[in-house]
Amino acid sequence: MKINENYLKLEQSYLFSTIAKKVAEFTKQNPDVRVIRLGIGDVTRPLCPAVTKALHEATDEMGIKETFKGYGPEQGYAFLRQTISEYYKGHHTEVSEDEIFVSDGAKSDLGNILDIFDADNTVLIPDPVYPVYVDTNIMANRTICYMEANKDNNFLPMPDYAVDADIIYLCSPNNPTGAVYSKDQLKEWVDYALAKNAIILFDAAYEAFIGDETLPRSIYQIEGAKKCAIEFCSLSKTAGFTGTRCGYTVVPFELKCGDVALHSLWLRRQTTKFNGVPYIIQKAAAAIFTPEGQQQIKENIEYYKQNAALLTEALTELGMSFIGGEHSPYIWLMCKSGMTSWEYFEYLLQEAHIVGTPGSGFGKNGEGYFRLTAFGEREDVEEAIKRLKALK
Amino acid sequence: MKINENYLKLEQSYLFSTIAKKVAEFTKQNPDVRVIRLGIGDVTRPLCPAVTKALHEATDEMGIKETFKGYGPEQGYAFLRQTISEYYKGHHTEVSEDEIFVSDGAKSDLGNILDIFDADNTVLIPDPVYPVYVDTNIMANRTICYMEANKDNNFLPMPDYAVDADIIYLCSPNNPTGAVYSKDQLKEWVDYALAKNAIILFDAAYEAFIGDETLPRSIYQIEGAKKCAIEFCSLSKTAGFTGTRCGYTVVPFELKCGDVALHSLWLRRQTTKFNGVPYIIQKAAAAIFTPEGQQQIKENIEYYKQNAALLTEALTELGMSFIGGEHSPYIWLMCKSGMTSWEYFEYLLQEAHIVGTPGSGFGKNGEGYFRLTAFGEREDVEEAIKRLKALK
Repeated sequence: MKINENYLKLEQSYLFSTIAKKVAEFTKQNPDVRVIRLGIGDVTRPLCPAVTKALHEATDEMGIKETFKGYGPEQGYAFLRQTISEYYKGHHTEVSEDEIFVSDGAKSDLGNILDIFDADNTVLIPDPVYPVYVDTNIMANRTICYMEANKDNNFLPMPDYAVDADIIYLCSPNNPTGAVYSKDQLKEWVDYALAKNAIILFDAAYEAFIGDETLPRSIYQIEGAKKCAIEFCSLSKTAGFTGTRCGYTVVPFELKCGDVALHSLWLRRQTTKFNGVPYIIQKAAAAIFTPEGQQQIKENIEYYKQNAALLTEALTELGMSFIGGEHSPYIWLMCKSGMTSWEYFEYLLQEAHIVGTPGSGFGKNGEGYFRLTAFGEREDVEEAIKRLKALK
Repeated sequence: MKINENYLKLEQSYLFSTIAKKVAEFTKQNPDVRVIRLGIGDVTRPLCPAVTKALHEATDEMGIKETFKGYGPEQGYAFLRQTISEYYKGHHTEVSEDEIFVSDGAKSDLGNILDIFDADNTVLIPDPVYPVYVDTNIMANRTICYMEANKDNNFLPMPDYAVDADIIYLCSPNNPTGAVYSKDQLKEWVDYALAKNAIILFDAAYEAFIGDETLPRSIYQIEGAKKCAIEFCSLSKTAGFTGTRCGYTVVPFELKCGDVALHSLWLRRQTTKFNGVPYIIQKAAAAIFTPEGQQQIKENIEYYKQNAALLTEALTELGMSFIGGEHSPYIWLMCKSGMTSWEYFEYLLQEAHIVGTPGSGFGKNGEGYFRLTAFGEREDVEEAIKRLKALK
């Protein structure tokens, strides 16, 4: 028996475990100090009432013979896919319910989608980036090209026709930088993908944080995208589902490689290696898309965005350089005068007792940067701001 | 961009869709006839009260800031892995909580586990078999050897040292035949795997139906198995979780390929491509392993086993040849005098209005056989028996 040797090429992901270790050490030495965590991108607000109501009701259904549900469709129940299709219409995008695949989250689908592509494809990945894009391709031994995301391009790299890519990762609003592509910029990417016969894997996990009608919330708002893009969406940050697990992926019918529809390949992958999302979770997810649910989750998103606004206001006041924090829960901060990401991490932890994420953990272009998240409770954010100001 | 061409080698799985089509046609032509479905292996009894109570409580936790849960450990919460470890102790098996990975079901893990193995491995698969073993390996272009399961070996094929296999699938109690390996037989498989440096993927999804203390419910009851086997378990049939989605996979620490622990590879796979099972589902799963939960799920399992006993009693009375139905919800029936599986399907549908699954859908050795499931309501089973007896 032979293992997949590509796994041995993976770098150990020490980022969050190193952070946890350093914070634990600090807390041990300073047991009375209140540490404020703006590091991990995890939500803190509870599930909204529309969602918990749906969970209770669906649980009751599952406890009674007449309404009990066994195996459901692997692709997700029609009631949920229909509401998602309607949601797309709400931002002027036509996505048919049968193009939507309900999943347990964008992370699963972003990894599993690679199963339908040959190992012999060149992958184009921005740097810095969500580490899952890189690791899942190392596991399959694909050639990876990086595109530089830096201050010069506002962390929004654009196509380079000298590079021949087959699979292109785009994440907008971006994790970790919070940068958002405009429609014109995405149009350039769609044109490039069509010209190169490449596919765009579009990670839209943070689309619900976009507050500007002119910015695209879906790549399908761009003409031609249905012929070259798969879109990954998540309810994790949209509705506080990081521990409840539900997302959806759109594979348009028009998306083909020669005669083969990628939709049929993904359907085959999902029906063979997946058995769908729990019925009660799908009922909970559907509740998010009701008018009541939308109202309630918007309140939570606004709460986080208000956190971000308070933070960016303070950073501006302090004369610090940053991007993000407007259509994103992430603020991408340039470290204090010439500090490396980890030096700045130590500095903030020791001097202000604030935990963030060193940008270098997301790629080489992240060096000298630092990610703060706007998730968390208001009083913690206000206290963090006080401490940042006192540092000055 | 190139697709994974292996997907084009997959045969379309027409089995259950063909059945559905034929039943729909029959129902259209005979709208007043009550068709009894003993075809698909799906549970019908509702979730037990211990489980729905846990779901309600966990939902309440998720609706309150103080007890809300965001991202959990990808491997599953310790509270659940501990109870599963205790459950193993109950059938005299030592499995550490850290060797257990909680998942959304055995189907996902049986497919995904292949990611940690090289494509260049020879796979040994029984015929007939659960089609997922075959399809997931075709997707990765692995060489597949089949082992014959037939009347001569009571549908329990044994190792052949002339065959060099790297990855071996065993399913006991078996789907579709209901056959169960004894400890001595499994010991032969473990010895073979150790001699060949092969790995056994042991599908124990139906272990809870074993009623005989001397039959192994886990491959780890066999000495040496921890050095050569991964075990896949499911709560789908055990606790009616087909629509609630939770299972667990055991990767022992001792299981190695050279210096590399497979546990570390699977942990890396899961942390990179999976984000864990919903918190509320894990709380529901933990409730199954409480004394109250065990009592309640055993009542459901006994209900299905009583269905099976009524069916096998009737088949015996009718002089029909079959196996299974004792430690399994499946009865594997020899078709009436020389009929093919599909001929018998038509015969039973037209003459008795009973739907089963043609054995040929599970592999060439399934030809001439027919699978009946014991899932369903008692009155349906009793009516089916009446009709079978009237056919004679």
